[in-house]
Amino acid sequence: MADSKQLRTMDEDPMAVEALLRDVFGIVVDEAIRKGTNASEKVCEWKEPEELKQLLDLELQSQGESRERILERCRAVIHYSVKTGYTYEIAPVFVLMEEEVLKKLRALVGWNSGDGVFCPGGSISNMYAMNLARFQRYPDCKQRGLRALPPLALFTSKECHYSITKGAAFLGLGTDSVRVVKADERGKMIPEDLERQISLAEAEGSVPFLVSATSGTTVLGAFDPLDAIADVCQRHGLWLHVDAAWGGSVLLSRTHRHLLDGIQRADSVAWNPHKLLAAGLQCSALLLRDTSNLLKRCHGSQASYLFQQDKFYDVALDTGDKVVQCGRRVDCLKLWLMWKAQGGQGLEQRIDQAFALTRYLVEEIKKREGFELVMEVAPALKERMVKKGTMMIGYQPHGTRANFFRMVVANPILTQADIDFLLGELERLGQDL
Amino acid sequence: MADSKQLRTMDEDPMAVEALLRDVFGIVVDEAIRKGTNASEKVCEWKEPEELKQLLDLELQSQGESRERILERCRAVIHYSVKTGYTYEIAPVFVLMEEEVLKKLRALVGWNSGDGVFCPGGSISNMYAMNLARFQRYPDCKQRGLRALPPLALFTSKECHYSITKGAAFLGLGTDSVRVVKADERGKMIPEDLERQISLAEAEGSVPFLVSATSGTTVLGAFDPLDAIADVCQRHGLWLHVDAAWGGSVLLSRTHRHLLDGIQRADSVAWNPHKLLAAGLQCSALLLRDTSNLLKRCHGSQASYLFQQDKFYDVALDTGDKVVQCGRRVDCLKLWLMWKAQGGQGLEQRIDQAFALTRYLVEEIKKREGFELVMEVAPALKERMVKKGTMMIGYQPHGTRANFFRMVVANPILTQADIDFLLGELERLGQDL
Repeated sequence: MADSKQLRTMDEDPMAVEALLRDVFGIVVDEAIRKGTNASEKVCEWKEPEELKQLLDLELQSQGESRERILERCRAVIHYSVKTGYTYEIAPVFVLMEEEVLKKLRALVGWNSGDGVFCPGGSISNMYAMNLARFQRYPDCKQRGLRALPPLALFTSKECHYSITKGAAFLGLGTDSVRVVKADERGKMIPEDLERQISLAEAEGSVPFLVSATSGTTVLGAFDPLDAIADVCQRHGLWLHVDAAWGGSVLLSRTHRHLLDGIQRADSVAWNPHKLLAAGLQCSALLLRDTSNLLKRCHGSQASYLFQQDKFYDVALDTGDKVVQCGRRVDCLKLWLMWKAQGGQGLEQRIDQAFALTRYLVEEIKKREGFELVMEVAPALKERMVKKGTMMIGYQPHGTRANFFRMVVANPILTQADIDFLLGELERLGQDL
Repeated sequence: MADSKQLRTMDEDPMAVEALLRDVFGIVVDEAIRKGTNASEKVCEWKEPEELKQLLDLELQSQGESRERILERCRAVIHYSVKTGYTYEIAPVFVLMEEEVLKKLRALVGWNSGDGVFCPGGSISNMYAMNLARFQRYPDCKQRGLRALPPLALFTSKECHYSITKGAAFLGLGTDSVRVVKADERGKMIPEDLERQISLAEAEGSVPFLVSATSGTTVLGAFDPLDAIADVCQRHGLWLHVDAAWGGSVLLSRTHRHLLDGIQRADSVAWNPHKLLAAGLQCSALLLRDTSNLLKRCHGSQASYLFQQDKFYDVALDTGDKVVQCGRRVDCLKLWLMWKAQGGQGLEQRIDQAFALTRYLVEEIKKREGFELVMEVAPALKERMVKKGTMMIGYQPHGTRANFFRMVVANPILTQADIDFLLGELERLGQDL
């Protein structure tokens, strides 16, 4: 049942939001543009890493901070960053900030050590996991390629994101290497079928190396039973990757994080704060339990024009060689600043709010007639909705079921009134169908 | 010799830049934030693609436009985009804009048809090219993986970007599949050695499938002789990829574009406008000569929750299935708006300016004593420079040569005075070394 106390709006006063944006804009103009183009200003206010960590107060807390404090933080972040129009050479602030944000996300997974990196989207995070798993098992693969290896097999449920098959093709494994495990009617992977598929692959001469479980499937929002899947992985010595692009943020909610029980047993986790937490696109982390520098060994190339070993600071801070990109955007900043502003508590409320509103939507649909979808009306309703411009909801089929609207209740400014409008509008648009 | 007319500053009045930014910010607040969060505003002002093309006046011209016109364009781009806090579902403006920008870049390469996509950086563009080349030759690879294929070989010079070997490892080919071709002392690939390496690979039982030439190498800024390399590729039936991440923008200069003569014979081109054109990071295009929908066939997965075939508009406009990412950032906007503002002519001047300043730098170094680098001083100078905060220049070794400063003269606001400051500062910092 919907709990009206939990359903209070998370929306801030729009005027206050606008005023905050104006102030941030002013700081960007002052600190980054005006000083950044003034030749008498320093390119960088150099600080030793430990001192800089203190100055920036990087740690992420449970309590959100005041508007004034957030503005100060914006100013400090720009002040200690490199202001240069040449190449994007070093990022003293963001290297430390990324480290702090990844540490926080790993702690929520249940790890007090490990590694990680921000990727350009969850699809590429999933590819990283696949590449790391095969490298860990067959380090030779980096140099000699897949031809030097036995045929590999990886396992994921039929409800997984399509990036798993895309990734298998891109990484040279081929889509045939993806063995599809059955899901139950709620969309959760069936661990017994995973066992069966592993035996089957082995019988066919393939070497199983990875299971990709999903926390928050694309269509049904299902959470695979991670503990049971981890048991299977442990028995067979397989890398467990959790694609928690959608569901990872649920770890912030003490009420709902049980949906990911067992995630601490994973080897890698893909988590996109740009989804359920609504950080700006893109903000996508790959987290690793590994402490053996696997990322750098797997992806490193030691390019001499970037990663010189004779630098005057600890070169372990040069994280660039962990990735397959060269230049990267600063994707950690959005999450760091949001966390500083909302605090872990504020983010937790967002998650709880999304679950509460979803429950409300389900209850309301049950109350209204005509909302049991048996006919093919979604494409027609979609066209009317887009052309009228009132809403934008995705539809899709599922198995043998007809096209249906996929409701994603994640935006923190949604209220009960929005849900009511949505249902009413669907009724209005479809009244003659 | 430096030509002072060519060396005029491209810098605009800083106050005018600031005022422009303030106006753009105001438009973003009005159109995207205020209207985007107002429930009585439409989520999207739906237009048929052809009508929208006209309304937006997408075409890129030679002449730059006025400040007022650019502000109108910002307003129109937001007005016709989807304003939704739900999922990033459709992008009517940016699909058309990306098409227009890619068409313009292809035209500069010398193609009046083809395909392309924006990637998260040049490294991933290069991986796309490698994946497309092997898929074109062995379509089976997508499904059956590399084990179904003979051992493959690709060719690039020892001056290539490190993403080529990173990509070969990531794609399962292994770094051994990269055959390194000799370069001359200016850093250009030697076509005769390419021939030799191809014969050698074949003799060892490998199947050559791709040559990656470089236009603008990382360290020496060399341009490989594309016409001679294209001849070799043609003789052996190899895919020619040009990594023009750095040098692609030189195609805008009628004076200097001869450095890329032969690029129209390539199969694919990686070009990062975020480098020499100084578009915001990231803005990285992969261009293809292919007209057979290779991109979609190679990367497509037809995910039913995104790419339904029963939509009410031409689904060929759904470009999302061409990429291995799922959500993507709108990287074409930066280049489109910059082009509208500067015009092709303004961008051409930027390139010519960079070349003229580089010549000036070389001449000045010749005039000054003590600038012939024979000792190992670069790391010490770098530390002093960073801690003083006056400059930020990268150094690196090359072959048997000592560490040297790698001068990249690309920023359009650079002037002769900046070059003079740089040389003077290097002298001041190093006077006791």
